[in-house]
Amino acid sequence: MKSKTINFKKKFKKFTKQWSPKIIAQMNDYHFKLVKIEGDFSWHDHKDTDEVFMVLEGELRIDFRDSEVVLKEGEMAVVPKGVEHKPFASKECKILLIEPAGTVNTGDAGGDKTSEDKWI
Amino acid sequence: MKSKTINFKKKFKKFTKQWSPKIIAQMNDYHFKLVKIEGDFSWHDHKDTDEVFMVLEGELRIDFRDSEVVLKEGEMAVVPKGVEHKPFASKECKILLIEPAGTVNTGDAGGDKTSEDKWI
Repeated sequence: MKSKTINFKKKFKKFTKQWSPKIIAQMNDYHFKLVKIEGDFSWHDHKDTDEVFMVLEGELRIDFRDSEVVLKEGEMAVVPKGVEHKPFASKECKILLIEPAGTVNTGDAGGDKTSEDKWI
Repeated sequence: MKSKTINFKKKFKKFTKQWSPKIIAQMNDYHFKLVKIEGDFSWHDHKDTDEVFMVLEGELRIDFRDSEVVLKEGEMAVVPKGVEHKPFASKECKILLIEPAGTVNTGDAGGDKTSEDKWI
């Protein structure tokens, strides 16, 4: 494995589909994924892992059952494992997700937003 | 643990010392660290872990024994475990590092640039 420059903007040009995370890098057994989101996702949690959201463009709100966080460009948050959350963006928002390889985007909740992650 | 917004620019205002990583977040057993660098670091590697460099402001060059990568704002690279590398920046560069908690900045090489990471 050789180290190479990964440019977020160039990678985002490679896909248009929303709610469909694309893997751009691996560090040990963790994946770095880009995703475009707009509107409401489904409530879900990840029983075994924390999850990092970093906003690269736009604005993301993560709803929790008892609170919310709002993230803009240059901001990140850690969603603790086992905590139910629901991402939301009023306009298209571009995000970097960091989580263990194999983490399913909808957690155990499933449903039609479940996506199979692909490398780009 | 509750989720909160972490703003990189606000965190960078909390310290000035270069080559002194500050922890801003934890995801499972990984730390997210901000660091300001300028000039040359020492050659080192991390025997047991990959390491992610993401440039938030400025330009970073990572030298390897047989190649280099240059990273600007909006770009990242993964340095594979066991690969010798030496970060360099001609002007102050602001970076996000992601690596397992307890990873020493100089690897096994030691020396006077070895830093004890603190939370900010």
